[in-house]
Amino acid sequence: MINSFPTVQLVLQPGVFDLGWGHPDPKLMPMEGMRQAASAASEQFGADMFAYGNAAGAGPLLAWLRERITQNEGRDPGFGGIAITGGNSLGLDQICTLLAKPGSIVLVESPTYHYAVKILRNHPFELVPVAADHNGLQIEALEAVLADLKRQGRQAQMLYCVPTYHNPTGACLSLERRNALIEIAQRNSFLIIEDDVYRDLSYNNTPPPSLWSMDRGSNVIRLGSFAKSLAPGLRLGWVTGDPDRIWRIADSGVLDSGGGSNHYAAMIVAAFCRAGRFEPHVASLRAAYAKRSHTLSAAFQTLLPDDIEVITPQGGFFTWINLPAPMATADLLPLAEAHGVSFIPGKKFFLHQGGERSVRLAHSLYPPEDLAVAAERFATAVQQLRKQ
Amino acid sequence: MINSFPTVQLVLQPGVFDLGWGHPDPKLMPMEGMRQAASAASEQFGADMFAYGNAAGAGPLLAWLRERITQNEGRDPGFGGIAITGGNSLGLDQICTLLAKPGSIVLVESPTYHYAVKILRNHPFELVPVAADHNGLQIEALEAVLADLKRQGRQAQMLYCVPTYHNPTGACLSLERRNALIEIAQRNSFLIIEDDVYRDLSYNNTPPPSLWSMDRGSNVIRLGSFAKSLAPGLRLGWVTGDPDRIWRIADSGVLDSGGGSNHYAAMIVAAFCRAGRFEPHVASLRAAYAKRSHTLSAAFQTLLPDDIEVITPQGGFFTWINLPAPMATADLLPLAEAHGVSFIPGKKFFLHQGGERSVRLAHSLYPPEDLAVAAERFATAVQQLRKQ
Repeated sequence: MINSFPTVQLVLQPGVFDLGWGHPDPKLMPMEGMRQAASAASEQFGADMFAYGNAAGAGPLLAWLRERITQNEGRDPGFGGIAITGGNSLGLDQICTLLAKPGSIVLVESPTYHYAVKILRNHPFELVPVAADHNGLQIEALEAVLADLKRQGRQAQMLYCVPTYHNPTGACLSLERRNALIEIAQRNSFLIIEDDVYRDLSYNNTPPPSLWSMDRGSNVIRLGSFAKSLAPGLRLGWVTGDPDRIWRIADSGVLDSGGGSNHYAAMIVAAFCRAGRFEPHVASLRAAYAKRSHTLSAAFQTLLPDDIEVITPQGGFFTWINLPAPMATADLLPLAEAHGVSFIPGKKFFLHQGGERSVRLAHSLYPPEDLAVAAERFATAVQQLRKQ
Repeated sequence: MINSFPTVQLVLQPGVFDLGWGHPDPKLMPMEGMRQAASAASEQFGADMFAYGNAAGAGPLLAWLRERITQNEGRDPGFGGIAITGGNSLGLDQICTLLAKPGSIVLVESPTYHYAVKILRNHPFELVPVAADHNGLQIEALEAVLADLKRQGRQAQMLYCVPTYHNPTGACLSLERRNALIEIAQRNSFLIIEDDVYRDLSYNNTPPPSLWSMDRGSNVIRLGSFAKSLAPGLRLGWVTGDPDRIWRIADSGVLDSGGGSNHYAAMIVAAFCRAGRFEPHVASLRAAYAKRSHTLSAAFQTLLPDDIEVITPQGGFFTWINLPAPMATADLLPLAEAHGVSFIPGKKFFLHQGGERSVRLAHSLYPPEDLAVAAERFATAVQQLRKQ
């Protein structure tokens, strides 16, 4: 029973480093810059920041995003191929409502972001898992699933994936698989929903090309976000894709009625970005999260036995660990928590079975010194489990 | 073809008073107060305003709303019976996704808010109109529709209505009809979606009780909003209802994944409200919009022939006009625009046929002096049409 109104989602137990939370570190958020941007937006935009916004999104932010995307990705979304969203979660929800029919078959990498699955399950779809590994979605598994559907006289309408700095595995889909995936989507006429939320958090600032930028047809819709690069509370992202699909989003009842997504926050973020604050901020984030990831990986290299597989990411928030049989995550979690470290068990990220020996560790919320201690506690728990 | 990114939704033709736009006047928005609230929130809440928000919404705003609603409406939503939304449009969209199944029958007053119909049509529902008049939804018409459905072995799942300061007619559902509607909803087990966006804009500050506050069962979910009382660009509202339904919204994939709706804007509005700024602001709005409505009605009383019905509202943004046969709105509009005044033809607000002799005029966007001129132009166009 609730007996008060919490302010934020995060709840931490004292004495526990909870590496379950895939949240950005509040200490790394540009609070002073955003405070100044709110004042600057008020001066620059006046009443326009409070009015019903343009349906596709606040013009000043769209213009900045279009220029940045064209420069960084070598593909221009154009005026009609981009819209502002209320974050990737709401963007995914709108895609589900507006671009797919009840009964649609939606392919989902497995493992995948568990809350995206929850969003998809809020819609009347049939979800079908496709296996993924340390190079992302397995193309052979995808072909097999599609062939199986074809034998049943059925067809997939959409595929949801996180090809870049994957949640939960941290993996990147290889370039070869990216090409193959796009070709298969074209051949089988399904829409790839590319959740690209970690693109700006490449540790060495060389993320792989987005599926959207590689697509020569119109088979990819890509969701980008300020949740990790600025702040999740803003609820602000963007979507790039085929102008016909973007128009169906911009011409939806929700945006016709309420105006563009989160107009006020979008205008403040536009003032932030146009003041040249975004690139230096995100460069400092890349350095900070790279150091955190490295701290965790380096500690594990020393502390963990060789038969434990640690997938070290090149960007994003997550380190994925596979334990050897017969060790099981379900047995590890209580031991780890008793030692003051927690995580999300791998099976949470699988549609059906799988992940029983896997662990997702988020290295985003804690500074390196805390992560070093968390790694020691985790290794202690692993050793203890092995002795049992 | 788009060749630039607009900032806002509003587009005005020079020389035309466009009373089609049901928008608040930007000049009446509390820009300086919101600028100060953004700074105050930054000081009061720090990083908490940028983090993933509590799923049901930002605690400080929920606490303020709960207290105000309890005081003004005599019913306490409790901790579990209220959540923040991204405005009424998104609230309605989430209700459609989360609280109804594909194929549901949704009853809609006719006339009704046309963009709500567009939101409902983005979902796989069957919409059935129920006639409304100057006292709101007609109870006999509702009973007839329900009886007709029953004969077909079918049942309505939801009913959408704007019972207070209706869009487009400005009408209020009478107290007698409110009681009857709630009783019928209980008896027939459908959910009333009460769009209560104009409640704070009662000209004499005595709005009728909300259906939600009158409901002794759990048949009403009520959508409230800051769009008219503060600013539409904020994209911020709330929903009150049965805790089980509110939980299904707060426990949705979208909010589990992205945190509470528009957390950053919600925290700034919380700072605005908690500083005691809301009540004096909304009192000044009530006075301003009352004066605008009165200006239009008074001018029409002098200028328009007696056989033209002008429905004078007690709150909200809209004046509704019914022309006598054989006059038709389709013939009036070009004449009015030629004289420099515009409006939305009544038929836009009807699900199927209806409204061919009706006109919606929004008196919200223009100051009284402009409305006086607009009324004269409108009356001239009416006289011209009569002579044809």
